[in-house]
Amino acid sequence: MKDAFEELKTLIDGILPADERAAESARKRQGELAKPPGSLGRLEELAVRLAGITGRVCNTLDDKVLLVFCADNGVVEEGVSSAPQSVTAAQTVQLTRGKTGASSIAAKLGCRVRVCDVGVAADLGTYPAVIDRKIAYGTKNIAKGPAMTREEAVEALLTGVQLALDAVREGADVLGVGEMGIGNTTTSAAVLSVLCGKPARDVTGRGGGITEDAYRKKISVIEKAIALNRPDPLDPIDVLSKVGGFDLAAMTGAFLGAAKARVPAVIDGFISVVAALCAARLCPAAGAFLIPSHASAEIGYKTAMDALGLAPLFDLGMRLGEGSGCPIAMAVLDAACAAMNGMATFSEARIDDGYLDPIRAADSFTVPGGVS
Amino acid sequence: MKDAFEELKTLIDGILPADERAAESARKRQGELAKPPGSLGRLEELAVRLAGITGRVCNTLDDKVLLVFCADNGVVEEGVSSAPQSVTAAQTVQLTRGKTGASSIAAKLGCRVRVCDVGVAADLGTYPAVIDRKIAYGTKNIAKGPAMTREEAVEALLTGVQLALDAVREGADVLGVGEMGIGNTTTSAAVLSVLCGKPARDVTGRGGGITEDAYRKKISVIEKAIALNRPDPLDPIDVLSKVGGFDLAAMTGAFLGAAKARVPAVIDGFISVVAALCAARLCPAAGAFLIPSHASAEIGYKTAMDALGLAPLFDLGMRLGEGSGCPIAMAVLDAACAAMNGMATFSEARIDDGYLDPIRAADSFTVPGGVS
Repeated sequence: MKDAFEELKTLIDGILPADERAAESARKRQGELAKPPGSLGRLEELAVRLAGITGRVCNTLDDKVLLVFCADNGVVEEGVSSAPQSVTAAQTVQLTRGKTGASSIAAKLGCRVRVCDVGVAADLGTYPAVIDRKIAYGTKNIAKGPAMTREEAVEALLTGVQLALDAVREGADVLGVGEMGIGNTTTSAAVLSVLCGKPARDVTGRGGGITEDAYRKKISVIEKAIALNRPDPLDPIDVLSKVGGFDLAAMTGAFLGAAKARVPAVIDGFISVVAALCAARLCPAAGAFLIPSHASAEIGYKTAMDALGLAPLFDLGMRLGEGSGCPIAMAVLDAACAAMNGMATFSEARIDDGYLDPIRAADSFTVPGGVS
Repeated sequence: MKDAFEELKTLIDGILPADERAAESARKRQGELAKPPGSLGRLEELAVRLAGITGRVCNTLDDKVLLVFCADNGVVEEGVSSAPQSVTAAQTVQLTRGKTGASSIAAKLGCRVRVCDVGVAADLGTYPAVIDRKIAYGTKNIAKGPAMTREEAVEALLTGVQLALDAVREGADVLGVGEMGIGNTTTSAAVLSVLCGKPARDVTGRGGGITEDAYRKKISVIEKAIALNRPDPLDPIDVLSKVGGFDLAAMTGAFLGAAKARVPAVIDGFISVVAALCAARLCPAAGAFLIPSHASAEIGYKTAMDALGLAPLFDLGMRLGEGSGCPIAMAVLDAACAAMNGMATFSEARIDDGYLDPIRAADSFTVPGGVS
């Protein structure tokens, strides 16, 4: 496993910061486009961020890919989830059939979905559409010991890296990072609690919708898991291996892979943002490659986003997971790119082709647009 | 003009309420889809609303059309805008070339744009891509008298109705309603002030970005226009003709036409929502056919949305106008439709094709999805 650790370290060392010169050029270009300054709001911010990511002022994100990492979590035996564990396997397969929320939305919005089994507690070998990178049949119960070994965590991380790099090699211009795994709001809250030094109750939500009793149980399970395993907050791999999950670790790897490949990586909801935070802790430069999507209702979501210095793009009250918010955010990115690439500049916006009075003084053309 | 009034009255009388049975069926179907109840948030609400609009539980909105109504406003001679009037004509043409914010975003997101001149103060006859329905070369100055005659207001309304009906006849499944017209935040604030009985200062914003002096001037111009013209708050046509504009009246008609044709009509920002409110005041049943998009920063936006009982879908800090928020909202509508049309139900979500243990008790399958 020495090689795997070395491979991960080399990958992380190879992630370069955002291209500030390209971002600055993009900012300048936004100021030249024929519109009131700032009137495209966060679309301008996104266009500038994309320039920093790709190094290009104008971008097109035509090939969109949603990576969904699926795994089971041993902690479900503590009764922290209201859904049976078998739902993970069922929905993993349904994801490949375009029959779940995220996959149906992705198909409609022009986003390919790649579904990867990193640890589902069922044999999915007869479903070839599921990419088989199974590390184990689910993690161990974090309330009784570490979820996985450090070697397994690195394997999951590298799996995520590889899936992201493969997707980009096959043409992806933008990646979304989602998951499917019963019990993973519990592991995500545990990881977030450790990384941010916050009490479990401050970062733990009700997930798919559990009773008051189950909610109290969930918090105490997380507290117990942290007390028992003593993960080191300064070592994200230690945290992921002790109280995380295969899905979380692979997603963390996917965010790192996207940063390495210099493509934007779209965060989905609570689990996804915790993985994004792990990636940024492992490699601060990777933070610049993250793109937010929707606000999750899970209370820990904001804690993780604040730690990343990000704000969600929209809040549609969604809490489905699977990466379901990513394709919608990709449409917003498309809008940001379209305005950057397609709008005339002030000097181009004159229609002085001999018929209308030309708008001669381009400088006076300061407030076009309908809000005037 | 008797005929025109009759035509409008017949149109309004022919707008039927939302189909509550279809909406109820859609609500029921949402409860059967394999996801935690309510976990698709506002996508569920949108799918139900669409069912009420079209009468069908499953909808596809493949043919998207943005109608942009362009006109000049005589009130600009009072100095209420920072942009020269000629910007209206220039951007009207640029809209047809896909070179403005809204048209570049629309093109990327698969939305056709139809640009209609209902009163631009320049001859655009040599630009055949601009649909010529010019009523006059701009309205008159509302600070000195009515913007237009009642006959002209009805003509503008019917123009909007016709453009909407034409678009639907040509295949449109969803319409967006935008505008281009220097000075139209002033007329919109005046109309809103009258319709909602609120002081001008409470519904007037800074539009494209004017100085403090110009802002005070704008408020006093609106107060003066209302005091002078005495529009009847209970007669939206009177309000539109006295302190509105050709763009606002045509947009109002477009919302009515969409309701008549039973297709969803997407509201853009401040001007668009004021037109939507006019449509709902003329015909309360038309309110059910409205779909919000982004939150406008203009202070009157919320007043109008509250009056309509609507909330924006997202807030990207945009204040460009032109209908620029509509194509993004249409992508959200696509997501809502895709989930409704594509997701498996609880009973379908079992993958009991002989390999995995089937999830036998569909009733226990209550919390799929990643948030668990």
